[in-house]
Amino acid sequence: MEDSSLERIPVLTLASGDSLSIPVYTIKGSKPGAPSAYLQSAMHGSEVQGSLVLALLLDYLAKHPPLGDIRIVPNCNPLGLSNKRGEYTDGRFDPVRGDNWNRKYFLPSSELDWEDFFKKHKKSPDAELFKAFRKELKSALEKREPRSSGDRMAVALQRLSIDYDICLDLHCANRSVRHAYVPHYAKEDARYLGIKFQLVMPDDKFGGAMDEVFFAPWTELARRTGRKSIPVQSFTVELGSHEEVSTRDGKEDLESILNYLRHRGVVKGKARKLQPVACPLKNYHVISAPKGGIVEFVAPLGKRVKRGQVVMRMLNFGTKPKFTELKSPVSGFPILHHSSAIANEGAELFKIAGV
Amino acid sequence: MEDSSLERIPVLTLASGDSLSIPVYTIKGSKPGAPSAYLQSAMHGSEVQGSLVLALLLDYLAKHPPLGDIRIVPNCNPLGLSNKRGEYTDGRFDPVRGDNWNRKYFLPSSELDWEDFFKKHKKSPDAELFKAFRKELKSALEKREPRSSGDRMAVALQRLSIDYDICLDLHCANRSVRHAYVPHYAKEDARYLGIKFQLVMPDDKFGGAMDEVFFAPWTELARRTGRKSIPVQSFTVELGSHEEVSTRDGKEDLESILNYLRHRGVVKGKARKLQPVACPLKNYHVISAPKGGIVEFVAPLGKRVKRGQVVMRMLNFGTKPKFTELKSPVSGFPILHHSSAIANEGAELFKIAGV
Amino acid sequence: MEDSSLERIPVLTLASGDSLSIPVYTIKGSKPGAPSAYLQSAMHGSEVQGSLVLALLLDYLAKHPPLGDIRIVPNCNPLGLSNKRGEYTDGRFDPVRGDNWNRKYFLPSSELDWEDFFKKHKKSPDAELFKAFRKELKSALEKREPRSSGDRMAVALQRLSIDYDICLDLHCANRSVRHAYVPHYAKEDARYLGIKFQLVMPDDKFGGAMDEVFFAPWTELARRTGRKSIPVQSFTVELGSHEEVSTRDGKEDLESILNYLRHRGVVKGKARKLQPVACPLKNYHVISAPKGGIVEFVAPLGKRVKRGQVVMRMLNFGTKPKFTELKSPVSGFPILHHSSAIANEGAELFKIAGV
Amino acid sequence: MEDSSLERIPVLTLASGDSLSIPVYTIKGSKPGAPSAYLQSAMHGSEVQGSLVLALLLDYLAKHPPLGDIRIVPNCNPLGLSNKRGEYTDGRFDPVRGDNWNRKYFLPSSELDWEDFFKKHKKSPDAELFKAFRKELKSALEKREPRSSGDRMAVALQRLSIDYDICLDLHCANRSVRHAYVPHYAKEDARYLGIKFQLVMPDDKFGGAMDEVFFAPWTELARRTGRKSIPVQSFTVELGSHEEVSTRDGKEDLESILNYLRHRGVVKGKARKLQPVACPLKNYHVISAPKGGIVEFVAPLGKRVKRGQVVMRMLNFGTKPKFTELKSPVSGFPILHHSSAIANEGAELFKIAGV
Repeated sequence: MEDSSLERIPVLTLASGDSLSIPVYTIKGSKPGAPSAYLQSAMHGSEVQGSLVLALLLDYLAKHPPLGDIRIVPNCNPLGLSNKRGEYTDGRFDPVRGDNWNRKYFLPSSELDWEDFFKKHKKSPDAELFKAFRKELKSALEKREPRSSGDRMAVALQRLSIDYDICLDLHCANRSVRHAYVPHYAKEDARYLGIKFQLVMPDDKFGGAMDEVFFAPWTELARRTGRKSIPVQSFTVELGSHEEVSTRDGKEDLESILNYLRHRGVVKGKARKLQPVACPLKNYHVISAPKGGIVEFVAPLGKRVKRGQVVMRMLNFGTKPKFTELKSPVSGFPILHHSSAIANEGAELFKIAGV
Repeated sequence: MEDSSLERIPVLTLASGDSLSIPVYTIKGSKPGAPSAYLQSAMHGSEVQGSLVLALLLDYLAKHPPLGDIRIVPNCNPLGLSNKRGEYTDGRFDPVRGDNWNRKYFLPSSELDWEDFFKKHKKSPDAELFKAFRKELKSALEKREPRSSGDRMAVALQRLSIDYDICLDLHCANRSVRHAYVPHYAKEDARYLGIKFQLVMPDDKFGGAMDEVFFAPWTELARRTGRKSIPVQSFTVELGSHEEVSTRDGKEDLESILNYLRHRGVVKGKARKLQPVACPLKNYHVISAPKGGIVEFVAPLGKRVKRGQVVMRMLNFGTKPKFTELKSPVSGFPILHHSSAIANEGAELFKIAGV
Repeated sequence: MEDSSLERIPVLTLASGDSLSIPVYTIKGSKPGAPSAYLQSAMHGSEVQGSLVLALLLDYLAKHPPLGDIRIVPNCNPLGLSNKRGEYTDGRFDPVRGDNWNRKYFLPSSELDWEDFFKKHKKSPDAELFKAFRKELKSALEKREPRSSGDRMAVALQRLSIDYDICLDLHCANRSVRHAYVPHYAKEDARYLGIKFQLVMPDDKFGGAMDEVFFAPWTELARRTGRKSIPVQSFTVELGSHEEVSTRDGKEDLESILNYLRHRGVVKGKARKLQPVACPLKNYHVISAPKGGIVEFVAPLGKRVKRGQVVMRMLNFGTKPKFTELKSPVSGFPILHHSSAIANEGAELFKIAGV
Repeated sequence: MEDSSLERIPVLTLASGDSLSIPVYTIKGSKPGAPSAYLQSAMHGSEVQGSLVLALLLDYLAKHPPLGDIRIVPNCNPLGLSNKRGEYTDGRFDPVRGDNWNRKYFLPSSELDWEDFFKKHKKSPDAELFKAFRKELKSALEKREPRSSGDRMAVALQRLSIDYDICLDLHCANRSVRHAYVPHYAKEDARYLGIKFQLVMPDDKFGGAMDEVFFAPWTELARRTGRKSIPVQSFTVELGSHEEVSTRDGKEDLESILNYLRHRGVVKGKARKLQPVACPLKNYHVISAPKGGIVEFVAPLGKRVKRGQVVMRMLNFGTKPKFTELKSPVSGFPILHHSSAIANEGAELFKIAGV
């Protein structure tokens, strides 16, 4: 794998003096001008199926060198990955501050002086405008002084990814079928991502997640200039359930990702156009626990349910033990459910894509 | 205490079937039309000095019945209060989702149709406008369907407080001197709050905290109508360090709060005008851990430091043990420091009000 | 269910003033002198399949009244059940002190003056001796002053169970097949428990678990008197994986337990003698993580593996991603594996019954 | 510091691939045959005052080279030190298994064939017997195959300490005055330890703590041989409250430790004989929370209280707020109290040395 290089980049020192680091694999593409891709996994420490898939991808690329540059960060949160609570991995939020690790990214366009920028560049052709814009974003990232541990790790990853055209942020979700978050403008290309269930977000969505910081500056640029072309794409891809890995599923996941990379010309090969089930994010329904209890998840994930169909049963112990049925408020596809059969009132138990 | 009544309001059922509840004390004022006050404590479970102060306040009010109505919720988060991790109280954020309990409040004006509202009420005199506006807020709160456990508790508290003119949300902060968060428009009245250090926030600040949801709809109304009068006030008051209580300090804290309530006419008595140290929120400086290590906090809290003065010493073990000095980037008053002498890189160690 | 009665017994008050309680169902048997049984579940909060099974058992008993008395405590640890960390249940150990909830039981014979007891009772016939002995145990439990939260809950449960002849303590285990812990002297009767894998413990084993405090005083009595008869039996039964419930599996679990209760004459009906795989506890092998990494569990649980067979694969990221195979040190049956694919060095990853 | 050498010994690899290590400083003594000392700190991650004291000791020894060999491990548990939960340090027990880190040490005499050993060595003079015995202990430690993460760290530390004559294991305790655990046989020498409060343990105490594994094999040897001489001493020294450090207190702590080392001839200088308050461990009283609530600690630590004196006040919210007084069951010295003012029922709130 001569065109690949590994760096281990320190991201955080511990109280003990030990240093936590992330492995970064960078592979040079063979075709000048081909689109480049950045892929990372496990920003939420427990979500490691993508890490295994990126190991398979690295192996694939050693045998099939890519056209465009590719950077791979298979375990991007060493603190979250190693933070145990019982045998599970307490890797979704900063244990000190409670911040969701995937909401700490910095919007690099947030301090841009747009007026000033447009004075210089508004009339430039696309390529030139984009180049100048990326330079601004890069410069903002370089200047950014992170405050908390989460900021530090987030900005480190943004600096690693800012030069790339595509960003795939691999996650997992509770107990879950494979699904992806897709910005509306990239819907057509997302069809090539072999992920059956796709939640379509507005182009201006911003809550601090990796996919959003990657595309949001560019969709804002498009809105402000009225141009149609958006040179970057990013998706959050949820590769099934967290806390587990499977090589067999990983091979399918690899194909799903390669199909998109082929379609975009990052790697060689012919891509197939697929027919995902697309659901607007606003139709993604949550069923919360109406009270505390023990929950049996009845409806299989990924299989259509009808409105009013029983999807869970809750067990409570009163004068007698009592089972209560919980029903779907919509017709659609169950995408994920709570990781545990035990829930206090208000827990998000079940999510259904209403389509 | 015949004019006081206690309710224990259930806020959350546990998986075990047990129900968590909050004590709510409501006291009728003797003077019709006098301003009313709502006080709560310990939304962050570990921050209980205010709970003790509210116990003292209830005792005071039993002997000195108030002019205006008063509602007191001394322990508003039973889940956070009881959630232990080691001997400390893991009560700052939802253990399931990581959400800071004091960022989950719902902005009741967020779904208001302002245009429609103004059609009916824009020309009404203040009193009438305010009454209609509060009715809208109340109705929005009643309709609100909370999703998560945090939403449920937050909305329950908002429903309890919505009828009151004043909201004091009592907190504590790490290792800390007494200080308060004060919206700019209420600065003058806040002088009567016997809290020496005051951080002054913009009137449009909104991040989901209790004080903000209480005043933000009204400051927005003022902005939109151009009227000067704002009929509500709310403050977050940080009564020293969390995880500890002191009756002796509590008596002083009680006086601090009574002075403001007297000034506002909620309780009888003469108020003294005080001279707090006010600091714009943007001048509130954080020193984060430049690396992990053991930290000794050197500068006493509440005593002025100069720019460049050593405020902490960090110990690391290399070839030899090494002590590093950390200096203040500004002149001002140290307000709080990290709860522990042990920090990973990026931890917020020290906060200084730059004045 | 007229012969059944529910009590909700308070076991612990929280800092908030709320009280946690356990549901206790007691059913009077129809046949005087028939053996009686005590069943409990979920002492480790996350282990709730037994709770569902006990709900099914209560339903069964309502239709098929038992011969002997039966007491059922389906959720015996409300603190552990409701204590969340992320979506999982942090219910294995006391969050304050780290004590495993199932190691806090009190050995009621520990303070017995055996010499004095034997002066009075050594020559009594079995029935009389046992009655006197049980009275001593009961009295010790009544006097016991619990210290910690764990002690309190453990002693409360022991007081509920001390009058019964049989104790089934229902647990679950990581990711696991059904298995049971069986004291050597009760091996033959345990064959009727429909649990395929059985770990056989020495009769004098004592580490503070429920099954052990139930039988250990009696095996000690047998050793000291030389008598063969032991009038009580207790088993820890692990009903598959924690954090999940299944009604379908629960029906089989119910049959497994009923078969033993029929055999012992607690409920009516004919029992089948089964052929479990019995493994001495000392042959129960653990494979720990030789280093930290991501782990794929390859060998299916419950299916025989040979010595040297690959049971796990570990993924680490060095210069290249690297998969390492971990092999079984023995021939036997994989019983359980770690709940998560993520492990720091030293984690117990896999357990194999060497037979 | 030419006679000192630093090693950083890896003790655990994380799931991320990063390695955690401990700093080990070894200093050669100038006087052959002088007693040697091993000192460690922070096995419970939050207990770091000793780490600062050991930094000061290293500095002292650089200027005043010791007579005997000294080994210093100032941060012996990197996992516990860095494991945060909120701003506090969740470093008392293994987050995966709940095991108290200071109960995982291995008793190296536990598998000794005493009969066989005595065949060879029983009649040897003391020096020879001790040498042979230490060799057995060392060999047992070398063979020991640790299972869990806690075992690994414990055995690593035991291997580092086994060649030394003295072991000081530095801890801190909740909110606490300085105190030490002292085995009965070493009482006289412990007087030179400048620690005012001393809890005297039976010579055969064993619960898996560092001090105990260090002396227990030797007290057993003494019992079995009837010899009076015990060539090792070890103490657990609690240097005040956890989660904080103070250089000013650290200088006094350094003097306390140096006084003992001088007395024993490990370092040069004259030692003063002191008059500690000694209390048999069985007279060390715990006051547990009779119910959940908010607790104010009233009696100052280290100052004598009388039986029946109020030591705490508990606040609960019923129809009215209610303060309850908690009284000391004995006369004696308050040594420590709970770290937090918030307690669920059963929490250990207060400990008093009854003397």
